[in-house]
Amino acid sequence: MKLTPFDDEYFMRKALQEAEIAFEKGEIPVGVVVVIDEKIIARGHNLTELLNDVTAHAEMQSITAAANYLGGKYLKNCTMYVTLEPCQMCAGALYWAQISNLVFAAGDPERGFRKMGTKLHPKTKVKFGIMETEASQLLKKFFIQKRNLN
Amino acid sequence: MKLTPFDDEYFMRKALQEAEIAFEKGEIPVGVVVVIDEKIIARGHNLTELLNDVTAHAEMQSITAAANYLGGKYLKNCTMYVTLEPCQMCAGALYWAQISNLVFAAGDPERGFRKMGTKLHPKTKVKFGIMETEASQLLKKFFIQKRNLN
Repeated sequence: MKLTPFDDEYFMRKALQEAEIAFEKGEIPVGVVVVIDEKIIARGHNLTELLNDVTAHAEMQSITAAANYLGGKYLKNCTMYVTLEPCQMCAGALYWAQISNLVFAAGDPERGFRKMGTKLHPKTKVKFGIMETEASQLLKKFFIQKRNLN
Repeated sequence: MKLTPFDDEYFMRKALQEAEIAFEKGEIPVGVVVVIDEKIIARGHNLTELLNDVTAHAEMQSITAAANYLGGKYLKNCTMYVTLEPCQMCAGALYWAQISNLVFAAGDPERGFRKMGTKLHPKTKVKFGIMETEASQLLKKFFIQKRNLN
């Protein structure tokens, strides 16, 4: 047994904190952290509304930030923790980045990369369902609130 | 017959000029212009090497720039001219942007969105093959030069 507080749940909780920041800003609440050697090297949350930019998904920003940190464009030995299953665009970016591990909380049965058939890099290992309930509840809360405001 | 110099070839030539700038910078030569009402509102060329960022494809930068110009994130009534068939990431971004028209020059049989099965938005019309020879030749020239340097 590995005696470390730095397990998948620990990092997914950090990604959820990012999602909560997005929620407070009125954005679809999705958050990301990118981790290498148990260290967070990038964080991000969805900013598509604030930036008026469909490319401003949490994953895209974090891929750029992590590459800046590493000084290279490939995210080898990195793990991305994201609260929602990535879409085609973000999975396509992770394909180019050749990320080693992708861990997501909630699945996206409509626009997730698995449903859309997007290919990740053959080197990328995928895990999902970590803190799925918390991530889903935050998304549901957002859409209920949005519906009531309209 | 429409008497205007602003046909597909005119705009693809502008995208090719962007690709040539990428070539001069040592980047895989791909260029883009985004057009609305016969007016170019965004230009871009691949900058993945210079920026050390896999997300810095010409299309991604141009989607952001066009949205900034329009003040909204949807590229309705816009046409993107791009010298190479978009990849999964860029096609995924165009899906979110709901772009009206996509025109590309050369196909990418390996990593193009059609081979990869990426879905564009149902509203997006696609045309290809405009100035395909010029775009392909520039790409070939780049890869030959790169091979000789290594």
